Amino acid sequence: MTSSSSPDGLSHDRLLDRLGEVAVRTGLNVAPGQQVLITAPLDAVPLVRKIAEHAYRAGASLVTPFYTDDAVTLARFHYAPDEAFDIAPNWLHDGMANAYRAGAARMAITGGNPVLLSEEDPDRVARAGKAASLAGRPAMELITSFAVNWNIVACATPAWAEQVFPDEPPERALALLWDAIFQASRVTVEDPVAAWAAHNETLHRRADWLNDRRFAALHFTGPGTDLTVGLADGHAWAGGSEPARNGIVCNPNIPTEEVFTTPHARRVEGFVRATKPLFHQGTLIDGIAVRFAGGRITEAHATQGQTVLERILATDDGARRLGEVALVPHSSPISQSGVLFRNTLFDENASSHIALGQAYTKCMVETEGQTPEQLEARGANTSFIHIDWMIGSAEIDVTAITQDGAREPLMKHGEWVKTV
Amino acid sequence: MTSSSSPDGLSHDRLLDRLGEVAVRTGLNVAPGQQVLITAPLDAVPLVRKIAEHAYRAGASLVTPFYTDDAVTLARFHYAPDEAFDIAPNWLHDGMANAYRAGAARMAITGGNPVLLSEEDPDRVARAGKAASLAGRPAMELITSFAVNWNIVACATPAWAEQVFPDEPPERALALLWDAIFQASRVTVEDPVAAWAAHNETLHRRADWLNDRRFAALHFTGPGTDLTVGLADGHAWAGGSEPARNGIVCNPNIPTEEVFTTPHARRVEGFVRATKPLFHQGTLIDGIAVRFAGGRITEAHATQGQTVLERILATDDGARRLGEVALVPHSSPISQSGVLFRNTLFDENASSHIALGQAYTKCMVETEGQTPEQLEARGANTSFIHIDWMIGSAEIDVTAITQDGAREPLMKHGEWVKTV
Repeated sequence: MTSSSSPDGLSHDRLLDRLGEVAVRTGLNVAPGQQVLITAPLDAVPLVRKIAEHAYRAGASLVTPFYTDDAVTLARFHYAPDEAFDIAPNWLHDGMANAYRAGAARMAITGGNPVLLSEEDPDRVARAGKAASLAGRPAMELITSFAVNWNIVACATPAWAEQVFPDEPPERALALLWDAIFQASRVTVEDPVAAWAAHNETLHRRADWLNDRRFAALHFTGPGTDLTVGLADGHAWAGGSEPARNGIVCNPNIPTEEVFTTPHARRVEGFVRATKPLFHQGTLIDGIAVRFAGGRITEAHATQGQTVLERILATDDGARRLGEVALVPHSSPISQSGVLFRNTLFDENASSHIALGQAYTKCMVETEGQTPEQLEARGANTSFIHIDWMIGSAEIDVTAITQDGAREPLMKHGEWVKTV
Repeated sequence: MTSSSSPDGLSHDRLLDRLGEVAVRTGLNVAPGQQVLITAPLDAVPLVRKIAEHAYRAGASLVTPFYTDDAVTLARFHYAPDEAFDIAPNWLHDGMANAYRAGAARMAITGGNPVLLSEEDPDRVARAGKAASLAGRPAMELITSFAVNWNIVACATPAWAEQVFPDEPPERALALLWDAIFQASRVTVEDPVAAWAAHNETLHRRADWLNDRRFAALHFTGPGTDLTVGLADGHAWAGGSEPARNGIVCNPNIPTEEVFTTPHARRVEGFVRATKPLFHQGTLIDGIAVRFAGGRITEAHATQGQTVLERILATDDGARRLGEVALVPHSSPISQSGVLFRNTLFDENASSHIALGQAYTKCMVETEGQTPEQLEARGANTSFIHIDWMIGSAEIDVTAITQDGAREPLMKHGEWVKTV
């Protein structure tokens, strides 16, 4: 890969270094003295080293990478006893939660094989996933409540590239995926950190405008979709960079194209059809179509992965309700690349989407001192899961419904009606 | 490396698989349902995968590898602010300690560059080492007190191989180091697990004999050495496999050739010259010569690495006293290979040795219910460190001193005088 170069003539190593720099400076915005915890697939070693260098240059006191290895994950499914699949490394998740409580920043590198577990027993996949979610909950709550600055960035890996570009030879597929990641992550432009500052400005203006309007609901219409998503009482729109509770302004996702907020867990009505497949914990769920009543999914179908979808919905009561709604114009660069990344970080930024499960407290106003019960009463959903899936496309219109019931076109054919 | 083969015609992959099997079955003796925590250098990925497979076949519920990356370690020394070097990942060490408390087995794969930090500021190296030792203490106490089954095994890495075979081209050096590891780890013989059972028998017989004799002290003599090492009151000799406190019989070191016990922290007199260099936390200390009085090192010299040696001795009071004495015949296979491994796991098993610092409680009889103070009164040393260094060779004689002061030849020219 070191010999590949971008259309702009930058070497792979230079682009990788820029991605590391953007992840550290724009993504995490590492504070001097801060520890940085990195989770990554094994193939991300070169990117991890770039991130470590930039983090130390930014004043990090200690960078600790933690690698996951698809081969070891698969060995468990192939050789471990059946009882093993309800076990998770609580000691590790608790340790990570303690790191965040002590102020460490969290960097997650995504890029594992999106269909790693597609051939494995769905029951074991679900049990292992649930055990991991339960064990990971304390750490994940600190992340979703934005206790510390965090960032997710992507690394192309051979297994992922093969899924995205199945007709290309492996090296070419990997190079194409890297190109797509570098483009989407805005590191091919002249000054990536400045470009990110400008992009953040655009997203902030859109979120500010939506917050001024304080709509009551969003109405999605299009083929197979007629869905009204009520917004939580005192919801707040967010997008781009934002301050974590430790005061550090960070970009949790690189790339990001969305503005998003908290829907009302009990005010979602109608039906919706997914516009892209969902890749969840190594399995594929395609052709999702669900019906909501009173905020709860009452019917759910998938043309592929029905069993996995049902197991997700059975996780807990909140798994059948929404925790996020996000708007992304169809003209976003990721969408225009035409690449189906089979990875949520990218696909959710190519399309308006909703998420089953846990809501982000940061997407509510005046939460200080409120109990979980008070937040729930305002519409914030609670669940062990948070799974985004895509419902936007050039065929989808979104109409805003104001607090007094008036209807106002928000997006037409997947594009914002108003420039802000 | 997959094309290299041993003198016995076994492929590298087959030998790696056998090493993984011996590490799991003989080394850890993994119990069904047990979690396994692996620490390893990044180059050990293929061995980690073998270990994971064998561990899952043996019934492990979850194998969690944790990789260290020399490049990230060096990036810290090159780019991090000076204040960083007193910081360690307490969250990770505490998490590991919790894993052991919950019953996880500990597998450590050694193989990092033995001189990684030789060019770095010794003050920073010492501070980082001390911070890591302090943070790691709770976990290390669980290991040294044998709370769970544990094992250290080795993986050849390019940086290590270059140090061991500096005159060979890199691929050849790596192949030679692998051959030496496979031979020393006894995986080139017909049935490695059975061979290890026989070897354990031999070591047990020697330790049993020494325990029957209950010597008061050992007197080492040879060039530059005239050292009397008093043994702790109620010391116990150990060697080969032994039961951990969780009841699992394991082999903490693969390879192992030593029988070892607890010296008396206040009864060491005379002078001793190291017979091999010491590689400690990425630095080299050569030509060590020290003098003891009342168990305490009163003079210490090294022809190379004097500063690092002094910093080690300054760690705490126990760093100047002995926590282990071990006997290894000069005819041991590792010694006969003639390879200076520059890695304690191997070099300490090629030569009789002593260790500065923390004693192993398991090398004392009747410790149940005794306080740390009671153990100290019997001679057990306490320290943050435990650093082995080699004092045996074909030129060294060891004379045992009985409880009533009689002298009895134990080793002549580095060999046991009596077969047991």
